[in-house]
Amino acid sequence: MKTRIKQAVGLALAAGFGLAASTSAFSAESLQDVMKRRGLSQQDLLAAAKTYVPTGKRDEFLAFSSGGQSGQIIVYGIPSMRILKYIAVFTPEPWQGYGFDENSKAVLRQGNIDGKEINWGDTHHPAISETQGQYDGQFLFINDKANPRLAVIDLRDFETKQIVVNPIYKSEHGGAFVTPNTEYVIEAAQYAAPLANQKFEPLTSFNSKYRGGVTYWKFDRHEGRLVPNESFSFELPPYSQDLSDAGKGPSEGWAFTNSFCSERYVGGIEKGRPPYEAGCSAKDTDYLHVMNWKKAAELVKAGKATKINGHNVLPIDVAVKEGVLFLVPEPKSPHGVDVTPDGKFMVVSGKLDTHVSVYSFEKIQAAIKAGKFESKDPYGIPVIAMKDALHTQVELGLGPLHTQYDAKSCVAYTSLYVDSQVAKWNYCEGKVLDKLSVHYNIGHLMTMEGDTMAPQGKYLVALNKLSIDRFNPVGPLHPQNHQLIDISNDKMQLLYDMPLPLGEPHYVVGIKADKLKPAVRYKVGTDSRTDKPHPGAVKAGQEKTVRNGNKVEVFGTLIRSHITPETIEVEKGDEVTIHLTNLERAQDETHGFTVSTFNVHASVEPGKTVTVKFTADKEGVYPYYCTEFCSALHLEMQGYLLVKPKGWKPEKDASLSGAGYTEEDYKKTLKKVADTQAVIDQVVGYITSVNYTDFPDVVAMMEDAVDQLNRTKEAKAKHEEAARGADWDQANLWAEQVWQYQVKAADLGLRAKTYLEQHGAKKVE
Amino acid sequence: MKTRIKQAVGLALAAGFGLAASTSAFSAESLQDVMKRRGLSQQDLLAAAKTYVPTGKRDEFLAFSSGGQSGQIIVYGIPSMRILKYIAVFTPEPWQGYGFDENSKAVLRQGNIDGKEINWGDTHHPAISETQGQYDGQFLFINDKANPRLAVIDLRDFETKQIVVNPIYKSEHGGAFVTPNTEYVIEAAQYAAPLANQKFEPLTSFNSKYRGGVTYWKFDRHEGRLVPNESFSFELPPYSQDLSDAGKGPSEGWAFTNSFCSERYVGGIEKGRPPYEAGCSAKDTDYLHVMNWKKAAELVKAGKATKINGHNVLPIDVAVKEGVLFLVPEPKSPHGVDVTPDGKFMVVSGKLDTHVSVYSFEKIQAAIKAGKFESKDPYGIPVIAMKDALHTQVELGLGPLHTQYDAKSCVAYTSLYVDSQVAKWNYCEGKVLDKLSVHYNIGHLMTMEGDTMAPQGKYLVALNKLSIDRFNPVGPLHPQNHQLIDISNDKMQLLYDMPLPLGEPHYVVGIKADKLKPAVRYKVGTDSRTDKPHPGAVKAGQEKTVRNGNKVEVFGTLIRSHITPETIEVEKGDEVTIHLTNLERAQDETHGFTVSTFNVHASVEPGKTVTVKFTADKEGVYPYYCTEFCSALHLEMQGYLLVKPKGWKPEKDASLSGAGYTEEDYKKTLKKVADTQAVIDQVVGYITSVNYTDFPDVVAMMEDAVDQLNRTKEAKAKHEEAARGADWDQANLWAEQVWQYQVKAADLGLRAKTYLEQHGAKKVE
Repeated sequence: MKTRIKQAVGLALAAGFGLAASTSAFSAESLQDVMKRRGLSQQDLLAAAKTYVPTGKRDEFLAFSSGGQSGQIIVYGIPSMRILKYIAVFTPEPWQGYGFDENSKAVLRQGNIDGKEINWGDTHHPAISETQGQYDGQFLFINDKANPRLAVIDLRDFETKQIVVNPIYKSEHGGAFVTPNTEYVIEAAQYAAPLANQKFEPLTSFNSKYRGGVTYWKFDRHEGRLVPNESFSFELPPYSQDLSDAGKGPSEGWAFTNSFCSERYVGGIEKGRPPYEAGCSAKDTDYLHVMNWKKAAELVKAGKATKINGHNVLPIDVAVKEGVLFLVPEPKSPHGVDVTPDGKFMVVSGKLDTHVSVYSFEKIQAAIKAGKFESKDPYGIPVIAMKDALHTQVELGLGPLHTQYDAKSCVAYTSLYVDSQVAKWNYCEGKVLDKLSVHYNIGHLMTMEGDTMAPQGKYLVALNKLSIDRFNPVGPLHPQNHQLIDISNDKMQLLYDMPLPLGEPHYVVGIKADKLKPAVRYKVGTDSRTDKPHPGAVKAGQEKTVRNGNKVEVFGTLIRSHITPETIEVEKGDEVTIHLTNLERAQDETHGFTVSTFNVHASVEPGKTVTVKFTADKEGVYPYYCTEFCSALHLEMQGYLLVKPKGWKPEKDASLSGAGYTEEDYKKTLKKVADTQAVIDQVVGYITSVNYTDFPDVVAMMEDAVDQLNRTKEAKAKHEEAARGADWDQANLWAEQVWQYQVKAADLGLRAKTYLEQHGAKKVE
Repeated sequence: MKTRIKQAVGLALAAGFGLAASTSAFSAESLQDVMKRRGLSQQDLLAAAKTYVPTGKRDEFLAFSSGGQSGQIIVYGIPSMRILKYIAVFTPEPWQGYGFDENSKAVLRQGNIDGKEINWGDTHHPAISETQGQYDGQFLFINDKANPRLAVIDLRDFETKQIVVNPIYKSEHGGAFVTPNTEYVIEAAQYAAPLANQKFEPLTSFNSKYRGGVTYWKFDRHEGRLVPNESFSFELPPYSQDLSDAGKGPSEGWAFTNSFCSERYVGGIEKGRPPYEAGCSAKDTDYLHVMNWKKAAELVKAGKATKINGHNVLPIDVAVKEGVLFLVPEPKSPHGVDVTPDGKFMVVSGKLDTHVSVYSFEKIQAAIKAGKFESKDPYGIPVIAMKDALHTQVELGLGPLHTQYDAKSCVAYTSLYVDSQVAKWNYCEGKVLDKLSVHYNIGHLMTMEGDTMAPQGKYLVALNKLSIDRFNPVGPLHPQNHQLIDISNDKMQLLYDMPLPLGEPHYVVGIKADKLKPAVRYKVGTDSRTDKPHPGAVKAGQEKTVRNGNKVEVFGTLIRSHITPETIEVEKGDEVTIHLTNLERAQDETHGFTVSTFNVHASVEPGKTVTVKFTADKEGVYPYYCTEFCSALHLEMQGYLLVKPKGWKPEKDASLSGAGYTEEDYKKTLKKVADTQAVIDQVVGYITSVNYTDFPDVVAMMEDAVDQLNRTKEAKAKHEEAARGADWDQANLWAEQVWQYQVKAADLGLRAKTYLEQHGAKKVE
């Protein structure tokens, strides 16, 4: 200890604290004041230092969290715990135009069930695509428990690209989980029901006619889409199948799904029968399902599946006969099965047992090979004895749920719901290493890449279901609390409480941020939902409005700070389709579009083309505008939809009144243009005096600035021509437009200049 | 400076850094390591210490931010900048059940326009209710720019209670702003249009038939609702009215609204006319509207208003004649008018001018009194000369937009969009005090209670529209960046970058957190949207299902961990209404409810009653469940909706198969119950050994725990009776149910124990 103290003092002095603080007196003084004023302990300060990310710096990991009943995905940074984005998945979200433009609607409506719109989802388990058992950062999958669906998000643009409806379930909690090379995405049923769609069977037929199952969705990585007709399901008994995990390394080709209520109990508290909670947790064990998915896929290819609702289903008897389905008892009401990074063990916690159980894949395979089963379940599935499958059991505490892994060998972390703790333990040796209290009632937990073959350690996030007193009160509905924990030392250290402001985030996955390479713009004219050229895209100068019967189709563009066209004239009853292409190339120069009271909205990022559509079923004057604060003149980025009565004709001599500008006004504007050009030249002078070409962000800004300046040529020609004809209105206004382009260019230039100054640009010859 | 350094060293030593670090070697050592590893400067560490809020501690201020195109409100804490909640306002939000249950739908659908559903809004300016010019923390108002609407949120439960549609506008950017005692909420039109609804007029009639306006919505504080028929509007010229602010102190009774495009320019880029951006910013000045709202309200009461679409409108000529409407030129294209805390000055920035202009209310009144006007506008409104109204002008920089105030006298902060800076300046003396760069392109800015008569100083938030390179990349659509700035010293200090993950937050208001007193539960059986008893509420034990023709109405309850009823049987085509009351009293014990594939969801906080409704238009078996992770057995909080074919009858001898439990099972369960009781007794022993009654949160938990334990009595009677009849199935299951109640009680007890330990509970006799 003494050596440590000496070392500490030395370091502290060297680093500018204590005596050495004289070099930065102001900060050192203030730090003490701040700690005192804010009641921070040194431990708090350490936690602050471990989580604070200064302006412009990056988080080390990105977390993708299910948004629970919000139907969305939450993206946040670790260790700062700042939410960076919500991705709309199963719920319409107008900011992103999701469900309010035609292109995203095409995705959202893939999730219709029985022909009807479902506008929310209960998202539960996100999964990142894997290559050789490690996150590759390409795709994200998420399930909807309430309405059994699965969605695909492309991590190039963080947009939802596909939704598929499970053809045979009525609910599914246990998805998404991927196989080690993302061949399949696994999705398990939850509450048993008849597999045939819209099929009523009474609850008295529960054991005979209700079924569970596990679906394996085939994923086409090249297309970035799930392939329904190459997907298949295991038919399973009406146990409530829950979470799954795919084998890896030695267990690759197999997958594991646990279950609860294998009692097949049917509650009925309103009829005097004990409720589900009593009957579903009455027996000491439930069943872990052990499946050989590789062989099952071959069986399906070989025609061994039957079709239910057009979907391939491998019947229980076929799976049993072909040796691809087994059961192992597991402590009652488990909540997760988690394969160890080396693929040798599967960890299961029965939430009403105090132990965590470590199953050996090797032992299970030995039992299967030897045909050593203790029994068969009521559906004829062979049951391996627990003792023949167990590696070890460890007593952890009350309400163990989920397990994740450390970068350190054999180290695991398990959430304890009732104890409100995280337990750190060794699964090889079967011993507890540390425990930490969390606030409160933890469900899932997550370590960095902690469900892959190469966990990254460092941080753990506790997903606490209740926050109770942790935050400023915001009414009866509380946020949940994701707590960040430092796991780099022997003892766990609580670092940060993060309130979750929307939805019940159920599970989260964390990936090293540098594995992600998102794009900042689209190729001009892209439909981001199909990743293909948008048929409604046009280039600058080619904008047009086309009428075909009562259909009006607008091919427009957006650029700081005008919408082309600025007037759309239709007749009452017309069907109006508006395609808009964002011509910008600068990063973050998104435009939005809406038309007053017509319930459409589009978010149009640089290069994207989006379509909105509505029926102009009421007469009147409806402003439209850019909904993003895109430039100083963004409020002037406006236009009017005019819905005229059928057959309306203008009065003969009606024309827009002139503004009455004079030659004087024109000359004044020309002077302003010249002055502004001087500012631009000055900024350009600075930029070109440094190594700006070394900064891709600046190069993109300069491209857009040059583009704006290029546009001045046409406007200049127009004002000069008008001036020659002494049309001072037109002359002055086109000169003003030259200035508008200049202002945008200057804005970009100033932005580039600031960037260069802050990023240490160097003088060049 | 030398004294300061010495002082710093002394303080640093005393506080445990440097040499004194020997007392906490581990932390001190780690702090250096962490700073080095994470590349933190001492300035960064200081910022971290100023913003970090340790677990369980509170933020000092709460911010309410508009959610932009997400149509919601964002609530976050200052200085931690953690988002605590999203409040659903104009957009359906399933987590909160908003738009997915009948009670919230009744609010959301108040926002229908022309009989049609609008499912989003472009929220812009939140306003907190005021008493004597200071925030009182009771209500929050927010406007929708795209579809001219206004919403009322009650800060007791953070729920939206009312939406009103503006009866005469087609858009409105400039709302909500309140008068000093919240008599009225001010909402200004943006893009001019005919005031009569669904009235087409060609753009050639722009000057004669298009109009702007400002609406004064009467607020009934007792009812917490706006009163449409006591509200009125000023008819105004077709200038694009923008933001407003109410006078206070000496200027109380007056209000100010600025405008842009007073050129009344109509763009038409598609027809070769210069776009709006050129024509709307061609003249050097626009108009500040000066209105006497108190007198105008009297005029309306006296019958001087005309009715348009059933709404009171004060015509321009009446307002002019009665002396309640004046204009003052203001630098072109201003973006905000902000009355100083003392009510003496109005600050306006023309965004295309480099100055900020300070108008004197006294001078304006003097000019009015003297009848000293420089001209009339084309609609006959008297125009006061700028020189007769100005107090001073200060050159700040490029693109000045909005101004907020400090607790320090005469100190103001103005956002500079093009320069990407915040300028600190003195409006009494007209001089610049400091400037700070922000990232990037700031729109609004906000100081704590900085638009009231008693600004709190301390912090400023810069609402930057672009983040560009500030955060980890998340695709082409970027978050915006709210930057927290320390304004307690002479020089501003940048503290924190907060990404905004959803929507374009446009403006935000910050209030001292201790002014808010939100509730944690409802009186049992409350409809939270009307604040009245819900007709569908029932008490425990009184649950029922009522059929009336083809209408089935369920009066159910929710409590950890079962839903009553657990089966709902209907026939195809039935209209199903389900009322659910949450019987819990514990803080944060929310339950959720959904029925598979029927697109309904309810969030049912403690005490609340909520109704969901749908037509059972398809046969089949549809699980329903609690969507909140509410207890260890939450997955078992389930049930089935059975939709039977019309006229379906069960087979005569059909009954649920027994589980086959034995006397042995029953005895084992009884032992488990006894063991668990021992644990409970132990926990209760601890709790009652300390001063737990001093902790209201613990008292609430204990109430719920006792409630759970009380329920064991009935279950115990049932298992004992079944045992007497040797019905071991029922005996064992009801004994299991006793245990379920025990588990919930134990969970609450443990939670209470942890709370007491962490909050320094003391031993009592």
